[in-house]
Amino acid sequence: MIKRVLLATDGSGPALAAEKLAGWLAYKTEAVLEVLYVRDIRLIRMPELMDWGAISIPVPVYHEEIEKVLSARAEAVLERVRRETESGGVRVELVVETGVPYQVIVEEARTVDLVVLGRAGEASGHEATGLGSTVERVIRTSPTPVIVAALEPREPRRLLLAYDGSDPATRALHVSAELAGALGLPVVVLTINDDALKAESLAAEAASYFEDHGLHAEIQTAAGEPDERILEAQTPDDLLAMGAFGKGLIRNLLLGSTAELVLRRAVGPVLVVR
Amino acid sequence: MIKRVLLATDGSGPALAAEKLAGWLAYKTEAVLEVLYVRDIRLIRMPELMDWGAISIPVPVYHEEIEKVLSARAEAVLERVRRETESGGVRVELVVETGVPYQVIVEEARTVDLVVLGRAGEASGHEATGLGSTVERVIRTSPTPVIVAALEPREPRRLLLAYDGSDPATRALHVSAELAGALGLPVVVLTINDDALKAESLAAEAASYFEDHGLHAEIQTAAGEPDERILEAQTPDDLLAMGAFGKGLIRNLLLGSTAELVLRRAVGPVLVVR
Repeated sequence: MIKRVLLATDGSGPALAAEKLAGWLAYKTEAVLEVLYVRDIRLIRMPELMDWGAISIPVPVYHEEIEKVLSARAEAVLERVRRETESGGVRVELVVETGVPYQVIVEEARTVDLVVLGRAGEASGHEATGLGSTVERVIRTSPTPVIVAALEPREPRRLLLAYDGSDPATRALHVSAELAGALGLPVVVLTINDDALKAESLAAEAASYFEDHGLHAEIQTAAGEPDERILEAQTPDDLLAMGAFGKGLIRNLLLGSTAELVLRRAVGPVLVVR
Repeated sequence: MIKRVLLATDGSGPALAAEKLAGWLAYKTEAVLEVLYVRDIRLIRMPELMDWGAISIPVPVYHEEIEKVLSARAEAVLERVRRETESGGVRVELVVETGVPYQVIVEEARTVDLVVLGRAGEASGHEATGLGSTVERVIRTSPTPVIVAALEPREPRRLLLAYDGSDPATRALHVSAELAGALGLPVVVLTINDDALKAESLAAEAASYFEDHGLHAEIQTAAGEPDERILEAQTPDDLLAMGAFGKGLIRNLLLGSTAELVLRRAVGPVLVVR
């Protein structure tokens, strides 16, 4: 059951959409919303790590200044999220930690049921279509399902599960049934397989799981490149659910290519399960 | 939510305990109990695979005979389980499949919420303390949590979670909260770490997760060999929950040694989560 949702935010543009989505998720599931701001230790430690050449800021002064700036920013971001979210009736807990962002997020993820992130943080600059390195690493290492928000905030109206029968897809199926039930979303199962019979039978097995959980799932099957077909199927209103790794490939250290390709170009939020 | 429990049984001694446990789990969670008997294709195909030397059973006759025997056995076992379980008010579905048992079980596991097995099947002979090869393989490859029943059937009265903060342990934590809630079991978190502070903080984080899910968890910490400490802590009344792989070890193809050592000697049922 979804009892605690972790929102990691740095107040950057993409994080704003994640804040809205996480607030909505927590509201619908009546979960506690834990809002995490990570003071990036790489910024604080920068003087030790870099050769500053001619510039001579004394290290202790730099530390003090950057810590002050990061603390002020953390407080401003978290208080804004609290204001905006609590007014909607969500119970909010604010957490500030210092460390390498993805490591802190993954550690916090252990004791929550869902992690929500924006597509990129402020350190990623302005590649609107990109996927930030923190997000990628969280997806690769989080023990808890992760939802990456789309750039444009929008309430999901449908859950679209891309299912191929692999282990991560099976886990995504199980999480999807719980989420769709809690959020009251209709479900579509999408299977992509050049063998039409195989596609049908995979879709049917996923639909039977949803049915056991009191949900009717519509079925869509397709042939061709999974990432292309998935991207075609997702509308901005769809929460897309998928496994992080493709079937049959040993990619324990790399994000499965389908999930990665989809995440970079998805028009709506994506739930990724390892 | 636990809506479908898969019981794989071949009617052997250890499977009887699994039948009782699975029936109890399905009853308490109001889940459908899917009872699976796998006709072992390795038995059916044996004549082709083996050099029979002087013995000359014609292959088609052998096939027909062994299939008849296996079908009769499947029916007898499944009907017995149906009789015993339905009288307790559980909705039962019977499934007979032909194949390599662990492969069929893992495939069926995709669309259920929990798998229940005995410690060994009939093919394992009479090593009462052993762990059958099918069970081992299911635990290594099932996308769904697996409970291995103890030899002696007994209703669990407590959930004992062995938690080390690793990914599989985190997943075991999440499944444990759901199970303990659905089964109404009190919870004990056990952390084993030679660093007492680390053990305390890990146990506290797990307890906080249970608290978010409306459950109070008692905390036990210990130092030393994890498998020894876990085995000491488990009573026959405890459903022991643990991750399949130990922390920090790359053992994707091998069962983590702690889980394996514990499974071989556990006095009560063990929930293993990959």
